[in-house]
Amino acid sequence: MLISNRIKNTKISAIRKLTPFAKEAKQKGLKVYHMNIGQPDVATPKEYFEGLKSYDKKVLGYESSEGIDELRSAFSDFLKKNNIYYSPEEIYITNGGSEALLFSFLIMCDEGDEILVPEPYYSNYNTIASSCGVKLVPFKTSIDDGFHIKNKESIELGVTAKTRAILYSNPSNPTGVVYSINELQMIADVAYEKELYIISDEVYRELVYDGIKYESIFSIEKIRENLVLVDSLSKRYSVCGSRVGMIATKNKNLREEIVKLCQSRLSTSSVEQYTALSLLKIPMSYIESVRDLYQERRNEVCRILEKIEGVKIYKPEGAFYLIASLPVDDAEDFCKWLLTDFSINNETVMFAPAEGFYIDRELGKSQIRLSYCISVEDLEKALHILEEGLKVYNSKN
Amino acid sequence: MLISNRIKNTKISAIRKLTPFAKEAKQKGLKVYHMNIGQPDVATPKEYFEGLKSYDKKVLGYESSEGIDELRSAFSDFLKKNNIYYSPEEIYITNGGSEALLFSFLIMCDEGDEILVPEPYYSNYNTIASSCGVKLVPFKTSIDDGFHIKNKESIELGVTAKTRAILYSNPSNPTGVVYSINELQMIADVAYEKELYIISDEVYRELVYDGIKYESIFSIEKIRENLVLVDSLSKRYSVCGSRVGMIATKNKNLREEIVKLCQSRLSTSSVEQYTALSLLKIPMSYIESVRDLYQERRNEVCRILEKIEGVKIYKPEGAFYLIASLPVDDAEDFCKWLLTDFSINNETVMFAPAEGFYIDRELGKSQIRLSYCISVEDLEKALHILEEGLKVYNSKN
Repeated sequence: MLISNRIKNTKISAIRKLTPFAKEAKQKGLKVYHMNIGQPDVATPKEYFEGLKSYDKKVLGYESSEGIDELRSAFSDFLKKNNIYYSPEEIYITNGGSEALLFSFLIMCDEGDEILVPEPYYSNYNTIASSCGVKLVPFKTSIDDGFHIKNKESIELGVTAKTRAILYSNPSNPTGVVYSINELQMIADVAYEKELYIISDEVYRELVYDGIKYESIFSIEKIRENLVLVDSLSKRYSVCGSRVGMIATKNKNLREEIVKLCQSRLSTSSVEQYTALSLLKIPMSYIESVRDLYQERRNEVCRILEKIEGVKIYKPEGAFYLIASLPVDDAEDFCKWLLTDFSINNETVMFAPAEGFYIDRELGKSQIRLSYCISVEDLEKALHILEEGLKVYNSKN
Repeated sequence: MLISNRIKNTKISAIRKLTPFAKEAKQKGLKVYHMNIGQPDVATPKEYFEGLKSYDKKVLGYESSEGIDELRSAFSDFLKKNNIYYSPEEIYITNGGSEALLFSFLIMCDEGDEILVPEPYYSNYNTIASSCGVKLVPFKTSIDDGFHIKNKESIELGVTAKTRAILYSNPSNPTGVVYSINELQMIADVAYEKELYIISDEVYRELVYDGIKYESIFSIEKIRENLVLVDSLSKRYSVCGSRVGMIATKNKNLREEIVKLCQSRLSTSSVEQYTALSLLKIPMSYIESVRDLYQERRNEVCRILEKIEGVKIYKPEGAFYLIASLPVDDAEDFCKWLLTDFSINNETVMFAPAEGFYIDRELGKSQIRLSYCISVEDLEKALHILEEGLKVYNSKN
C-alpha cells in the first residue's frame, strides 16, 4: 500500500528532531536546558485557570464552527489596540495558529502551487505546506543583515506562474527579526503587483524590544484584500497548550472558503474558547511585563554569545529566538553530540539545528536556532555549556 | 487572486446548510426542534468537569505532539473492552475524529486519488476529502436493504487504479446501520485483494441496540496492516466540544507519517487531554445506560414514522440517526419550508436534507437524515410537526 508523495516529501519537525537524544540524556540522569523550543516558561495567568473553573454548561456541545461570537469580538477588540481593524465576522477561531496556516494553504493552493517565504523560516511552515502538496519557495536573507529583507528584487526573484502567496512571521520565528514598514512595503508591493495573497503570521506581535513600535502590514491599505492575518494566544499568554488561534481577512471570497474548512472539523474546544475570553481581558500591562522579561533575556543571550570565539550573531528585535552561526561544520552533529557526549555538572543543553529552517540545508549547516524561554540564570549556565562544548568538540574533530 | 480548485469544489456541510433559516425562525420567536445534528442532549458526566477543575500545572505548555502517554494508554485499555488491541504507541491523539480522518486522507492519497465509501455517507467525509483534493467514490446501498452492503461485487465495482482506501463508519452516520461480520468480511476481502487501506470510523461503537454484539473489522486478522481505526469521545460521553479523538494503526509506515502530521500542528489541547482521562475511567455501565436511552428513542421514532403516510423507513441497529424517505419531490425544499413557513403552537423542526449525504444528489432528493438527540417527549412533538407539515406542504404543492 502506498504512502502519498506529499507526505513522503514532508520532513519531520526540525525543532523536535533531536528529542529522542534529549530523552536518552534525561534517562542517564542529566538535566537538559531546552533552548530548542519556543515553549514559554512564564507562569500561565491565573485568569486562564479561573476561566476553566467557571465553565458551567451542562452539555459540552459543539460551538459554532467559526468560533463563539464572544471570542471573535474579543479578538477584534484586542487587534484594535495595534491599529488592526477586523470586525468579529471577519475573524474565525482556529486550533492554534497552525490550523490557520493549514486553512490558508488549502484555500490558496492546489497541489504544486508555490508560496514565497523569507529564509530561514519557521520549519513547520514547510511541514504543513508540504503535507498538503504546496511548495515553499524561499527568498534569501542573511545573518550579516540581521535577516532583514534586502530589497524588493530579492522577493520578486522567486515569483513564478505558480506563486500564490507570500508568507512570513513578524516578529520572526526563527530569526527574531522585526520587519520595518519599508520592508513590509516591499512585500506589499510585490503582492499587489503580482496579485498574490499575503499571510502575515503575527503570533509574536507584542514581543518587540528596544521601544520599537510594531507595524503590521495591515496598515498598508492597498493590500487589505490580499491579506490573511494569523494569530494565536500561545506565546503572549504562555498558553501553548490551549490551541486557540485565529485567521482574519477582509477578503469575502476567502472567508466563504474558510467557513467550509471550519465546518469540516466541526468546531474547536468549547472550554478553551470560553477560557480564552478571560485571557483577552487581561490588561496590556501584563503583556508588557512579559515583553520586558524576554528583552532582558535577549540582552543577556547576546552579551554572552558575542564573547564566544567563532560565534556570529546579530541582535534580534523581537520574538524569543535567534540564529547563531557556530564555528563547526555540522551544527546538527554538534547539537546531537551535546546531548549524547557532553555535560558539565550533569547538565547539558539542547538547541535546534538551523538547517531545518532552510530549503537549501547547506545554508544553515553551521547554524543553530536558540530560544530564550528559560530564566537568565539558566541561560547563563546553558550558554556556558555551549562555550565549553565548542572547545571540546572542536579539539576532537 | 485565485481560490484553489480543491476548495472551490468543496461543498458546504449538508448538516448545517439550513442553519440560517433556523436562525431566522428563532428570531421570529419560534422554538426549533433540532433533529438535524448529532449533538447529544445527554448531560456531560460530572467527571469531565471535575477533570477541568483538577488541572493544576503552572505553565500550560505544549504536550507531546502524539498525545500524552497516559491518554494513549487509557484509549488502549478502553479499546480492549471491545477486543480491539492497540498498544499505546500505536495510538495518536487527534483534534476529534475529524483530524484523524484528515490525517488518513493526506497520508494515503495524493491529489486525484480515490477513496471508496458506502453511500449515503457522513457528509463531512466529502468535505474533508475534497478540501485536500481527494475524490470520494461511492458504492451504493439502499433504504430497501436497511442500507446494508449487498455483496462484495457492489464494493469492487468502484475500485480503480487510483483507489487507495475504503472508508466507512460503523455504526453508520447517517444511516444507523451496524455492519455484520459478513459485511465487514466483504470490505476486508476487497481491501486485502486490491491492497487498499481501510479507515474504520467507530465513534458510535457503543451505541448498538437490540442486544447485537458489536464486531469491529479489527477482528479480521489478515487486514490488520491495512487498517486505520478512527475514534472520538464526543458521542459516547456527550463531549462534542472537547475535540478529543484518536487514530490507531498497526502499520508502521503509516505511523511514521502520522507523527509528522501530529508535529505539524504541535499538539492538541493539554487540558482536554488530561480531562479525557477522567472520562475513560467511567464504568461501562454509564455508556450502557446512554445506549438504552437512545434505543428507547429509536423505537419511538420508528414507531411514529412507520405510521406516517408515504414515509418509508427501516429500523437502524445503532448510532442515533436514520434516513427517512418522504412523500415529497424535493426534501431540501420541504425542510426549508418547515423552517420558514410552518409551525404548530409556535414550534417547528429542523432536519438535514439527505442529498448532501450522496455524491449523486438525485438519489437522496426525497430523503432526510434525522437524529434522535432530543427527549422522547420532544421527538413526539417534532414528528407530529413533520406529519402535519407533510399534509399542508403536499396540499399546496
